[in-house]
Amino acid sequence: MRIAVDGMGGDNAPREIVKGCVEVSKLISDEIIIVGDKTQIQNELRKYRYNKKQIKIVHAPEVIRNEDAPVRAVRTKVESSLVKGINMVKDKEADLLISAGNTGAIMAGGLFILGRIQGIDRPAIAATYPVMGRRGVSLLVDAGANVECKPNNLLEFATMGSIYMQKVLDIERPTVALVNVGTEENKGTTVVRAAYELLEKSSLNFIGNVEAREIPKGVCDVIVCDGFVGNIILKMTEGLAWNLLKLIKSEFLSDAISKLGALLLSGKLKELRDQFDYSEYGGAPILGVKGALVKMHGSSKSNAVKNTILKGISYAENNVVQMIQDSVLELEEVIISD
Amino acid sequence: MRIAVDGMGGDNAPREIVKGCVEVSKLISDEIIIVGDKTQIQNELRKYRYNKKQIKIVHAPEVIRNEDAPVRAVRTKVESSLVKGINMVKDKEADLLISAGNTGAIMAGGLFILGRIQGIDRPAIAATYPVMGRRGVSLLVDAGANVECKPNNLLEFATMGSIYMQKVLDIERPTVALVNVGTEENKGTTVVRAAYELLEKSSLNFIGNVEAREIPKGVCDVIVCDGFVGNIILKMTEGLAWNLLKLIKSEFLSDAISKLGALLLSGKLKELRDQFDYSEYGGAPILGVKGALVKMHGSSKSNAVKNTILKGISYAENNVVQMIQDSVLELEEVIISD
Repeated sequence: MRIAVDGMGGDNAPREIVKGCVEVSKLISDEIIIVGDKTQIQNELRKYRYNKKQIKIVHAPEVIRNEDAPVRAVRTKVESSLVKGINMVKDKEADLLISAGNTGAIMAGGLFILGRIQGIDRPAIAATYPVMGRRGVSLLVDAGANVECKPNNLLEFATMGSIYMQKVLDIERPTVALVNVGTEENKGTTVVRAAYELLEKSSLNFIGNVEAREIPKGVCDVIVCDGFVGNIILKMTEGLAWNLLKLIKSEFLSDAISKLGALLLSGKLKELRDQFDYSEYGGAPILGVKGALVKMHGSSKSNAVKNTILKGISYAENNVVQMIQDSVLELEEVIISD
Repeated sequence: MRIAVDGMGGDNAPREIVKGCVEVSKLISDEIIIVGDKTQIQNELRKYRYNKKQIKIVHAPEVIRNEDAPVRAVRTKVESSLVKGINMVKDKEADLLISAGNTGAIMAGGLFILGRIQGIDRPAIAATYPVMGRRGVSLLVDAGANVECKPNNLLEFATMGSIYMQKVLDIERPTVALVNVGTEENKGTTVVRAAYELLEKSSLNFIGNVEAREIPKGVCDVIVCDGFVGNIILKMTEGLAWNLLKLIKSEFLSDAISKLGALLLSGKLKELRDQFDYSEYGGAPILGVKGALVKMHGSSKSNAVKNTILKGISYAENNVVQMIQDSVLELEEVIISD
């Protein structure tokens, strides 16, 4: 397998991206192609011992930055690491592209360069959400790409998310739940109520509405919502988990006895922090475009890069893109019969 | 002041409701009127010493339950504690009603019995949200009453929330922020973008969009969003805070050294838990109806009842309802000039 990595995207590029690529190269035999400014990438690579046949560079002189307008950036910066990387997937020069860059530009690149899978109206970002249940993660679709959705978009998200969880996480019949303000069928907005009906008629393992309170408990495999709500769920989790751990830390250090306690517990606290460290989780695939494209958190460090590449291999190998394409016909039956 | 309390609403009624009324009666000189089944309330009151001139009972033979359809319940159960209590506010027999009952029925009762303030299209639930900043709380409007909103509704929520924070929490020029998926003005749905424009033109202390990640940090006094998003924010917080504390507790008790540490820290852990205990916070007023109506969490215990009554007094005394009425003209100027 040939894995393309956007060497210039994200807050810690190219340093942490290159470091992550070197680290993961010792665990896998696949080829890694870092796309970006050749001189900068080489300077980083020079810090490590690595297999020169396994890690290659494709030169890209331009960079799409976070402040760039996504569509415009993808259209004009054709020599950027992101656009070149996505083109490599399109031209079958790579099986997968991973980027920690501008989320909007990754989406726009997916749409304009790879194109959407026929029958999928709206591709979506699928984020792995750490939960406390048995499996450790749920998949949240859409995690932020589509702030406004129609009912059939939510059905698409559910279908694509189910296929991903089945193929990549090996869950036989993934459970699907719809984020809502109550568990009863008639709750929520017009769009959510209509989506409930579509999901119920589909062949998915739909278990009904889920209230936000239940999400961290890991009550379902696929969490379906529009991108506005998905963004709120992810960002609330991030903000609250970090603030809470910070608060705990400051409380623990406020007097001598607690300090001693905290010392005794420091290992446990570190374990806990890691459980909420998003970099431990492996990126977010853009589901619904014709190619394997995975977005990493902008602040990803080498460990996140490593994990995302490992998870990405399983995503590309299992041919999730093709599986989604095959499932579209069934989707249309559900929507038309509505 | 005469405070009416729904003696039959909530998971722990009438026991904890009556207990809370007795507890708070020792701190205040105001009259407390418990509305509900006379025999049951008397049986509970009999457990305590209290001033019989201060705590009175108004008999109501019916109860609106959580599973009742709100509108129907309010229309048909006219002898229920909730409907009787709201009627007491309408007829000026009480200055305030507090209830831990069916949220939908409280809203419906507010709308049909008290009526909306002229010029307010959509009354809203305003929840105090515990934050880690200097002030300790932000006000979240709407916390769940209106799952679908128009831009002017969000402006109404912001205006009513500002008046509440100014009058009840004594904050001179409360800062107002709009929940969105990014801080830039052009982010979010059509409705949210239009609301941004209205807020910017208003005389409120509008500080722009707030991402969900920032909410727990306490970056603003009034958090504005539709009821769907408000529900997600509150329930995510509840679910995540409790799960996290549970996880910490189990981690801490998993081996002997950590156990010793946990023992040394148990006081601190308890303090932390209390910081996230919603019962410490004082209920959620229904803003925009013609009368003071406050909803408590369904699982409220006596301590929550006590705190809600104390906060409710300040709400009713400061005449927030009248203030909202007076501010409506200004609101219309902003909307019409749009």
